[in-house]
Parts: sequence; C-alpha cells; structure tokens
Amino acid sequence: MPSGPRGGDALDAALDDRDALGYVFIGRGPDPTLRYLTGRGFDTTVVYVRVAGESHLRVPSTIETPEVPGVAVRIDDKPAGKAAAAVLGSEATSGTVLVPQTIPHDAALHLESAGYDLASTPVLDNACAVKDDDERAAIETVQRAARRGIARAAEILADATVDNATTTDDDADATDDDTAHTADDDGTLVWDGAPLSTERIRRQVNVALAIEGVDAAGATTVDVGGRERSGETTPEDDASAVVLRADDPVVVSVAPRGRDGYRGALARTFVVDADGGWERRAHVACDAARDVALVEAGPGADAAFVGSEIRAETAAFGFSPSEEVARDVGGGIGLSLCESPPLDGDTELSAGNVIRVRTAVSDPENGRIELVDVMAIDDDGPVFLGDPPTSLDPAAWSQ
Amino acid sequence: MPSGPRGGDALDAALDDRDALGYVFIGRGPDPTLRYLTGRGFDTTVVYVRVAGESHLRVPSTIETPEVPGVAVRIDDKPAGKAAAAVLGSEATSGTVLVPQTIPHDAALHLESAGYDLASTPVLDNACAVKDDDERAAIETVQRAARRGIARAAEILADATVDNATTTDDDADATDDDTAHTADDDGTLVWDGAPLSTERIRRQVNVALAIEGVDAAGATTVDVGGRERSGETTPEDDASAVVLRADDPVVVSVAPRGRDGYRGALARTFVVDADGGWERRAHVACDAARDVALVEAGPGADAAFVGSEIRAETAAFGFSPSEEVARDVGGGIGLSLCESPPLDGDTELSAGNVIRVRTAVSDPENGRIELVDVMAIDDDGPVFLGDPPTSLDPAAWSQ
Repeated sequence: MPSGPRGGDALDAALDDRDALGYVFIGRGPDPTLRYLTGRGFDTTVVYVRVAGESHLRVPSTIETPEVPGVAVRIDDKPAGKAAAAVLGSEATSGTVLVPQTIPHDAALHLESAGYDLASTPVLDNACAVKDDDERAAIETVQRAARRGIARAAEILADATVDNATTTDDDADATDDDTAHTADDDGTLVWDGAPLSTERIRRQVNVALAIEGVDAAGATTVDVGGRERSGETTPEDDASAVVLRADDPVVVSVAPRGRDGYRGALARTFVVDADGGWERRAHVACDAARDVALVEAGPGADAAFVGSEIRAETAAFGFSPSEEVARDVGGGIGLSLCESPPLDGDTELSAGNVIRVRTAVSDPENGRIELVDVMAIDDDGPVFLGDPPTSLDPAAWSQ
Repeated sequence: MPSGPRGGDALDAALDDRDALGYVFIGRGPDPTLRYLTGRGFDTTVVYVRVAGESHLRVPSTIETPEVPGVAVRIDDKPAGKAAAAVLGSEATSGTVLVPQTIPHDAALHLESAGYDLASTPVLDNACAVKDDDERAAIETVQRAARRGIARAAEILADATVDNATTTDDDADATDDDTAHTADDDGTLVWDGAPLSTERIRRQVNVALAIEGVDAAGATTVDVGGRERSGETTPEDDASAVVLRADDPVVVSVAPRGRDGYRGALARTFVVDADGGWERRAHVACDAARDVALVEAGPGADAAFVGSEIRAETAAFGFSPSEEVARDVGGGIGLSLCESPPLDGDTELSAGNVIRVRTAVSDPENGRIELVDVMAIDDDGPVFLGDPPTSLDPAAWSQ
C-alpha cells in the first residue's frame, strides 16, 4: 500500500529550477492534490507549504491535529494565505513562490501583500501522471475490487428470470389508461422474488465493494442509457431507478476508491436476452475501439491521437461521430478519476501513466453500450489491469 | 428527496443588494457548493454563473454534457475565468461580479482583465447553513442509514466471544521474543470463527450502509483510540487495523453520503467487557456534554458559547480541557461534513441549522471515548435526529 506524502522531490526540483523560495498549496477535504502531498484527506481547508526541503501543514484548531509522517503539522487559525506566509517567513520574507494556477484568490492576494511574487507551476499535475510501483499496485488492488463489483451485477443478471406476463399489483384490476404500460412490462426481470430494478443491482454492487474493503465513492451507477420505462418501482428505488427488462442493455459502472485514495474504474454493459442487432453492433464497436487503445497507447504516443483513434474506430461500425459516439474516451486516473494525461490535447504518453479508457455508443431509442477499463502504460506497451471479460452476456462472467 | 439546484434566490437577493451584475463559482468534482448550486457532482472543473435571474453552467468537452434541471448547460473548453466572462459578457461587459473568497486565482485574474470588478460574498455559506424541509428530510434519511451501520458494529461486538488463551498460529511453537505479546492477546475477541479486527468491523459496517443505499464516503472508521497492540492481524487488515480485546473502547464512526449528496454523522464507543473505571467516567462525561447541546443550542444561541459549554461539561468530570477533552465539538453539516455554523466563532444559531455534535475524551493509555450525533435546530429547540442510544454496551443497541 502506498503510504505517506509524495511530491516533495518533484517540488524541490521545480523550486531549484525556477530559483523559487517555496511552494504553497491550499486545499480542502478530499482534494486529490492534497492527498498526494500528505497521504490523506481532511474535512476542512488546510495549508501545505514546501520550503527548504521540508513539508509543512497548517490546520485549523477545529479539527483534531493529524499526524502526517514526514510533514510538520501545526495549528494555525489565520486565513490560509496568512498561515502560508508565516511558514515562508521563517525562511525568507520575499522571493518567488510557486503555486498551482487555481490557488484560492484570497490566499494569493495575502501572499502577494506579504511581499512574495507568485508564479504558477504544473509540477504536481505532471508528477501525479507518472505512477510509481506502489501507486500502480494500489490501483491494481482497487481494480480487482471493481471487478468483484461488476461480477456481482453479472451474477444477479445471470440469475434473473424473465416474467412475461407481469402486471403491477396495483393495476391488476384496473381498466383505465394507466394499464397501458402493462404491455411494456412484458419481459420484466425478476430476481430474489421481486422485480429487478437498477437500484437493487446498484446496492448489491456496493455491498460487494464494501466486502472487498473499498469505497463505492458515490460513483456506482446502473442504468439503461435513457430508455423509456413505465413508472413501476421497487421499495429501494429512488426517482432515477427503473425496473429492468430482458432486452435492456444494462450499463453497470463502478469507480471505487481504495483506502489509500487511489481510484479504479470499470464499466460493462449486459443484456440478458438481446433481441436487437443494435446492441450487438454497438458492443462490437466498443470492444474494437477498446482494443485500439492497446495498439496505439504506447510510451511516446500522442494522447490526443489515441483519443481520436478510439472515437474513429467506434464510428467505423456505422455510428455518427457527433451524435452517437461518446466524447469522453478517458484519461489519467489515480487519486482523481480525471487527471493528467487526458486523451485529448497535446500530451505525450509515457511509461508509468495509468489511463481510464472508455468506449461508448448511445442513442435515444436503444440506450447505451459502454465499456470502461484501466490501462497501465508499461515500458513495453499498454496493458489492461486485470483485463476482465467484455461480453454482453452476464453468464459469461465468472467471479 | 431534495433535487435540483438551490441558491438561486439567495444569489439574486445578494446581487440586487450589492448592485452587482452576476455571481461566479468555479468548482471541481464533489465540491459541496457546486452540488448545492447544481444538485449534482462532476468529475472535472466546471463553471457556474448566475446572471439576470438565470443559472448557467459551462463544462469541458471531455465529459458527457449533463442535463441539469433549471440550469443552462453548454460546452466551453476555455479556461474557467474566460468561460465565466463569456457568460457575463452576454449581459454586460463591465460591473461588479460577486465571487466566493476562494475563487481560483487564475479565474479571478481573467475576470478582472475582462473588465469586471470582483467582490467576495459569503451568501452561499449562509444559505447552506439553513436547511429547507427537503434538505432536513434528506439528512434524516442518511442518518437512519448511519444508525443501521453503527447497529451492525454493535451486533458484531455483542456476538463476539472472548478468547482468553489465544496465541497466534504462526507463533505457537516459537520461543523467541516475538512471543512476548502472547500475554497481550489474552481477552482477544473472536467473531465468526476468526479474530475480530477493526477492519473486519469496518467492512461489515460499510456492507450495512450499502444495503441501505448510501455511500460510506470513505468516512467509516473503527479504532481503539491509539491503544497499543500486538502485531497480530487478520487477512483483511491493512497497517492501521488491530485485533480487538474485550476491554478495548472501540470507537465506531460513520459519516455516509446519501444519493442526493447530504451527509449523516454518527459515532458510538462500545466496550465488550469494561474492566476499568476510566471508560465509564469518560463515557458519562461525553454523554452529559452531549445533553448540554440539547439545552443550549436553541435558535438565537451563540454558537461559540455552545461549543465552550460542551467542552466545559466534558472537563467537569475530571478531564484536562487542553489534553484530554476533544477540541472538535462539531458544527454545521449538510452537503459537507464541516459547514456553517461552526460551534466556534461569532455566529448565532438559527432554526433550520443542522449541526454535527461531537463529544470526546482521549488519553494515550486508555484510548478514546467519542459520541457523534446530528442535531436539527427547530423553532422550538434542538433535537437529535433519530436519537440513537448512547450506551457503552453493544448489547444495549437494537436495530
């Protein structure tokens, strides 16, 4: 497990390179940069300062003072910019201070009025983009848990039975227009004695993630890609849940967070009993586009080119690039779901990058087919972590 | 369930009051303010602008364009400040723009160079602090789930048996110094056929939360407050996990997030077989201090006074205010665990506030006793949501 702060060496090199006094980061809560710098999250705004080869953290008195290995932690209830200036002031009262572009404006003004010149640096974004062995191992661990979550959904869908003559109990004797959706309910899935809704699957997936010791991170979704549905619900359901039918493409997506903060990402689409060619064609397109990443995303490849090739391959199966092919094809993943390098823009991929790869096709009538994986770029080329099956058939998944 | 954006009316009133053109918020990911303004989270940085009574959102092309009821969503890949200026520019090319103090510095500079004068406003912090009925109901719902999570921990601890002659298997035949901890293992708890560790309980609590449909939000902790332990671990354990003993005060803390983003918070301390007076005295102190909140935290009360009274009551049972009594006594809870009003500083409590109340005593030798609840301040006074039992005895908890 990766533990403890990172980024100190990269910051020291950047400070040396730009003849700067120190580096200041101000963040709150689950901020991934803060987690990178300190190895943990906080429930409030804290101030990180790197100066003279040492890391300092200033926290308010309203939280219990954390112990952070390798970081000098002190209480300071002053506004963040003043607290940062006080740390820098112990070394020098003027000079260049490196900050992220997005440093809070009030803190930047405090630092400037204290006599420091601010200059922005992307050094941490760049450092985060290249994972060390511990970070990659952490992502592999959470990705294994992600697979267990998706496998649970597949298991439930494979176990589900098809009810071809369902009417909702309340409407059984009704004759008015409300019963018009009875025909729609043909083919409703039933599992464990009750109609199977997206929400019932979502909860079971999150139970599987909890058993593995990872956090669902609010990122588990189960949906039918906007297909229209009757108003039938189960007791677990909220407004967005729908009861599933055998011919629905069911998109199950997880992006859990491991205890150390690193994220996984995995999505699969399942159809219990496909009756249309659209799902199969869209699935073949997504699967082929996913393979394109394995061919194109080696060290030295242009990230935007990889992204455009993924989109082009998806479209090559007869889907509209602007209307049906997904724009989001992924990008770096680590402590954040969306970090450097994006599969867009002018970046060169390098060994050590870990990339979320997403291929998807959607359409208002048919719904959506989506595949998401995590790919590590090794010295000798890219590899999908765990390389879980991509089949549309839930029975083809084994735990 | 609360749905859709909030804060528009409060912003319009503030804009009117200060003769300002618009309001700009730039946020990323799970930011609670962003969630308040849009009703949802994002995986990347987005720009919210309120101008002429309308809400606008600008998102990058790398995410699928979200549908946000009541908010005009458009793609804009320009830097956040420029994207915000473009929205404002459709109404006026100069004027005062209200922003949070912590608006990203680069965006603030963009807005200023585009010709706008920035002025900071706490209007949203103040608006968030007073919950409407839907928000309060959302917190009650997640708090019920929190109770189920704690109840699961109590159930496991009540079911656990005490093993008075445990040695770890690996060390059973060893005679070197490593076996010195065998004596410490006396009284080890066993559950479901294996030593009961903090991590095993944590996972079971998170399973209970997942069944309830809420997210553990990475906030579930189970610990013995720094008590020293042998190195025995179970297969689930990470470095911070310890195997429990019957006389350990076990602090179980959850702060789940409901599907709509609202947080709950509940912590209880359990002792299976207390052999010392410290735990009981500390528990009585925490329980009495918790009751102080019910007496003092009515509408119109001074928040800092309530906080100091809670600390004073805890200390009154013979604990050092600076060394043993917890500094963090809580504050506003909603989309964030720590929001306005804090139980510190110069704030007046008002009806509609929802407050996390924390009482705790800790000491390096004995560990920690901690109680956390969520209290709603109603017109006729404060009430603990759900008012779960506070007993040290896990068997006293019923689901």
